[in-house]
Amino acid sequence: MIGFVNDYSEGAHERILARLGDENRVRHDPYGEDAICDEARGYIRSALGADCDIHFLVGGTQTNATVISALLRPHQGVISADIGHIATHESGAIEATGHKVLTLPSVAGKLTASQIEALAAAHRDDPTREHAVQPAMVYLSHPTEVGTIYSKAELEAIAAVCRKFGLLLYIDGARMGCALTAPGNDVTLADLARLTDAFYIGGTKMGALFGEALVLPNAAAAKDFRYIIKQKGGRLAKGWLLGAQFAELFRDGLYERLAAHANKMASQLAAGIEALGLSFLAPGATNQVFPVLPVGAIEALQNEFAFLVWEKADDRHMAVRLVTSWATEEAAVETFLAALRGCLAAKEG
Amino acid sequence: MIGFVNDYSEGAHERILARLGDENRVRHDPYGEDAICDEARGYIRSALGADCDIHFLVGGTQTNATVISALLRPHQGVISADIGHIATHESGAIEATGHKVLTLPSVAGKLTASQIEALAAAHRDDPTREHAVQPAMVYLSHPTEVGTIYSKAELEAIAAVCRKFGLLLYIDGARMGCALTAPGNDVTLADLARLTDAFYIGGTKMGALFGEALVLPNAAAAKDFRYIIKQKGGRLAKGWLLGAQFAELFRDGLYERLAAHANKMASQLAAGIEALGLSFLAPGATNQVFPVLPVGAIEALQNEFAFLVWEKADDRHMAVRLVTSWATEEAAVETFLAALRGCLAAKEG
Amino acid sequence: MIGFVNDYSEGAHERILARLGDENRVRHDPYGEDAICDEARGYIRSALGADCDIHFLVGGTQTNATVISALLRPHQGVISADIGHIATHESGAIEATGHKVLTLPSVAGKLTASQIEALAAAHRDDPTREHAVQPAMVYLSHPTEVGTIYSKAELEAIAAVCRKFGLLLYIDGARMGCALTAPGNDVTLADLARLTDAFYIGGTKMGALFGEALVLPNAAAAKDFRYIIKQKGGRLAKGWLLGAQFAELFRDGLYERLAAHANKMASQLAAGIEALGLSFLAPGATNQVFPVLPVGAIEALQNEFAFLVWEKADDRHMAVRLVTSWATEEAAVETFLAALRGCLAAKEG
Amino acid sequence: MIGFVNDYSEGAHERILARLGDENRVRHDPYGEDAICDEARGYIRSALGADCDIHFLVGGTQTNATVISALLRPHQGVISADIGHIATHESGAIEATGHKVLTLPSVAGKLTASQIEALAAAHRDDPTREHAVQPAMVYLSHPTEVGTIYSKAELEAIAAVCRKFGLLLYIDGARMGCALTAPGNDVTLADLARLTDAFYIGGTKMGALFGEALVLPNAAAAKDFRYIIKQKGGRLAKGWLLGAQFAELFRDGLYERLAAHANKMASQLAAGIEALGLSFLAPGATNQVFPVLPVGAIEALQNEFAFLVWEKADDRHMAVRLVTSWATEEAAVETFLAALRGCLAAKEG
Repeated sequence: MIGFVNDYSEGAHERILARLGDENRVRHDPYGEDAICDEARGYIRSALGADCDIHFLVGGTQTNATVISALLRPHQGVISADIGHIATHESGAIEATGHKVLTLPSVAGKLTASQIEALAAAHRDDPTREHAVQPAMVYLSHPTEVGTIYSKAELEAIAAVCRKFGLLLYIDGARMGCALTAPGNDVTLADLARLTDAFYIGGTKMGALFGEALVLPNAAAAKDFRYIIKQKGGRLAKGWLLGAQFAELFRDGLYERLAAHANKMASQLAAGIEALGLSFLAPGATNQVFPVLPVGAIEALQNEFAFLVWEKADDRHMAVRLVTSWATEEAAVETFLAALRGCLAAKEG
Repeated sequence: MIGFVNDYSEGAHERILARLGDENRVRHDPYGEDAICDEARGYIRSALGADCDIHFLVGGTQTNATVISALLRPHQGVISADIGHIATHESGAIEATGHKVLTLPSVAGKLTASQIEALAAAHRDDPTREHAVQPAMVYLSHPTEVGTIYSKAELEAIAAVCRKFGLLLYIDGARMGCALTAPGNDVTLADLARLTDAFYIGGTKMGALFGEALVLPNAAAAKDFRYIIKQKGGRLAKGWLLGAQFAELFRDGLYERLAAHANKMASQLAAGIEALGLSFLAPGATNQVFPVLPVGAIEALQNEFAFLVWEKADDRHMAVRLVTSWATEEAAVETFLAALRGCLAAKEG
Repeated sequence: MIGFVNDYSEGAHERILARLGDENRVRHDPYGEDAICDEARGYIRSALGADCDIHFLVGGTQTNATVISALLRPHQGVISADIGHIATHESGAIEATGHKVLTLPSVAGKLTASQIEALAAAHRDDPTREHAVQPAMVYLSHPTEVGTIYSKAELEAIAAVCRKFGLLLYIDGARMGCALTAPGNDVTLADLARLTDAFYIGGTKMGALFGEALVLPNAAAAKDFRYIIKQKGGRLAKGWLLGAQFAELFRDGLYERLAAHANKMASQLAAGIEALGLSFLAPGATNQVFPVLPVGAIEALQNEFAFLVWEKADDRHMAVRLVTSWATEEAAVETFLAALRGCLAAKEG
Repeated sequence: MIGFVNDYSEGAHERILARLGDENRVRHDPYGEDAICDEARGYIRSALGADCDIHFLVGGTQTNATVISALLRPHQGVISADIGHIATHESGAIEATGHKVLTLPSVAGKLTASQIEALAAAHRDDPTREHAVQPAMVYLSHPTEVGTIYSKAELEAIAAVCRKFGLLLYIDGARMGCALTAPGNDVTLADLARLTDAFYIGGTKMGALFGEALVLPNAAAAKDFRYIIKQKGGRLAKGWLLGAQFAELFRDGLYERLAAHANKMASQLAAGIEALGLSFLAPGATNQVFPVLPVGAIEALQNEFAFLVWEKADDRHMAVRLVTSWATEEAAVETFLAALRGCLAAKEG
């Protein structure tokens, strides 16, 4: 079975395993206060061009719940796209910390500055607003859940609305590497450090075994953050395990190289599918492709390839999701395209 | 200023004040374990035809948050209409107890059994359901936030879906009296005791000073409930204050008489407005009327009458909300209709 | 049965009922934004000599949970005496909002500045402090759960420690009137407005039907407070019910007069008991007396009087709690003393 | 610097790293539903002699908060020793899920059945119990925070009290291996599966890189558990990382061998210290030793060895904590004993 089902079925890049092996024999200070975590922080701060607090956590849901509950007061909620990860795929982790997720409809997975402004202004102008949840933070996924990315102009417009209405801006970067290296991308980590209050650079889906690097450009927000990470179960006793992975990923650009490969594989998939005259649910930019395929083709392909059926397009077509990763082999892409070509030909024949 | 802005601006029926005065000189056991609360429970149990646990709480938001958090496990959420009180007007009280409100679009404020079934089935059939919030309870408002009511057939269909999918059924009856006495209503308190796991009979908006009577037909759900009421701040030290109000309301049918009066006043308003050729946002059944009025008429009426502008209908019309209560005087209704007639005539003249 | 079991079995002073009756026929703005609430706020601000935010809530547990959860961040806890109401009698209401109650042993129900300083310093100096709950607030009861009161010097010393360590200071004044009018008291409401971040002036136990007046001298803490009151179920729709009660209590000194009466009745009880050669568990200052009585006398007295047996003193003696209120009659005190005298005489005879 | 400061400064046993390396190249199903996790579950179930649900989580605080919040209703609390990890070292993680930790004083870190019975009976018999938190679970650490272990008779007595009062029994086994292999131990994993509702077998401190294996003998408690793990941030995307570690640890007894080594090193430390005529704070049984040393010796030893100063014994002596691990070398123990001998000789000389 050739896998396009997600980007977390493979392990880690070999260099990461090697570094873990090297450090395994050494005693390290616990809970992320060790020299390797500091090394990794140094690399990331260079990329940020700013001296932000950086914490390493184990996973994305944990990171989202920790950040959002740390920064909001009890009556405040977080604005998210309707398909945002916190709104749909975290088993209510945000609500479990006491906060409502205020959803807005999204186009290609993205929110716009004007949508956010309209929601914030409506709340401000509502005479009964104290009976509603106060919007206090904007949560964006970059790339989004359907693989699209924000442009620098879009993020700057959103950040301006946030400043205007006193909203915090937080970005979930589970697949940040794929955003940074997407064709046409103009957003850098330094931009994010300048525009947001918090964001995380995902490791789990980008070539690490596990782990996310949380960056807190808002110094006030960062106060006492280590207490809250501990409380939410996110302080790894052997924190150097996370430091070692991010040190390798950021020491010499490995993070971007791995993400660029994932993007390239997705792009080849998309080009091949488009060449067959098929259309897409969303405009691909990163490592996820959502082609609309005939139902019969899908059934045939599922014998050989693992992927998700995303949603119904019409009576005879479904959109599917193909995900590539740092570990996807070019041969797998070619095999898939050949099989798809075969399915379509058989159908016509 | 004549008030149609809500049904909680007036105090209580005189008989309630008189009873409070009578009992004020007597020492009572605290926390709702006194003889007057038992008297009130007796009257209500007669109406239910069932020996359910009954608790008296202070307000609706408190009652909703207490019931929902008492009955759900941490990963579970409650299904509500998009305009449900818990979804929009409780400052995130449900989320503050850790639970997501799962909203469905409503027609005239109501949910249907098939909508609920579709949501529950989709969750059950989702292979990644453990990453979503588990729907575990249905929350209905009866009457709804726009004054409509459920028929017995509709409630039975919803209760059947709940049983099929293991969902609890909870009904917010902030204006229960107006549902019970609405023209065409076929739902009794005994039906609610048979069909639901929990529901409350509202006092605050129905002629009491304050207070809601929570009924728990599901005996398992009722276990240890008094601890949770205390924890959520709902156990009134002088619980007899609530008992005395519900005793008067249910001793001889006062509750229904007061509600029927409110309905009648709304019905006269609606008939008068309709006679002027105007339309309505929602079909009126209880004590709320939502006529669509010309913008100019609204401005003129606001000098003399208090009411909410509900939403824009078109460039020159807005829907407004007129609420009547047990205390609304027929003269106020006539004054309003005369004024409205004047506005429309002036406009045409 | 003559009652010394608590101070919330009686209703309210007649003037309060009369005012409720007067206002019952008038329409009021909802949710505490009405003219009567403003009238009451005016009287209280005069007593405070400061323009603090004041909110009226229904009960003490609700007020405590609302204040504490509104002012703490997720990793922070509140310091309380081991017998503090929040630590023992609120069914975990504080923990239900996510916060630990950090208890210290108390003498006569009170904490000292040096105890608090020691705890705060130990936390600050603990190298693993990020694995502990951060102490961030001090909760005092004044009077305490055993009827004692803080002196101005004691409160100033505690407030100074709070400032030194960045702790908030919050005072639960469920029986505040009895503290203000206790013999030897030197603490005024103005002192509390100067020394604390938040405190409440209890109504339920001091002659109101129900209700507590929350004062927020810390303006930053007061931000958005009405959202949080709503969320925690504490915003009464007919908020004027609370305003009317506090307006009567504070219009012309009724609050202090009622409390002084309760204190006087307790003082007469204590003097009579002491004259019989009996001792006390705690030094009485307000409306609670804790005499140590022979077991046989307790059993005899329980036929005629309602009171709590507090704790065992030795094999033949128990401490009991006698509570007086604004409504306690002098005759009841005399009857009790005569009965006690009889019991002791019978025993000796 | 030779380390006795904790048992989580080293990495993992080489076999674990080797297995991770082997599996790294293979695609695995995510979220703990892969074949390696199943392999590990099989080994553990063999040891249990029971077909319990088993989940792999990342760390101890996360596991504790997930289990406790999953099994308790809102008004319920968990009984713990005063020095229990959940009471002191988890930054309020349990309270953050809404539950109070009810502490009891401990002797040598342990609770007794009679203490628990007394607390449960006092609650049951308290007429105002609904104003208190309901004790509903017992949390034990085995080994305890000071290295002691429960005997089978002690655990059976505690389990009997739990059954009698309807309390759940949960055991934190962060260092379970050291308990299983302690001299004099008579408790097996099968006993724990028989006596408890939930317990976890610690990996992080016992030779794994990270991870804990949670066992749920109570099938009702296990319902929907994967939702709650996800919500609390504990479902590792690459769950096979945990499975691989526990598979190696339990495939052929490696877990016990590593723990027995840690115990042996601690035992040699203790014997050597005792031979020098020194005493101990707590009776050593597992991998922690708490000798009472002269202050001067401590200062001298700290130049060469890392360890915690635990608490003051008298003006001239302090208890220190020495922790050994699977990776502690016998030479380190001998070096420490020689250095201590030198300090004491110098002092006498």
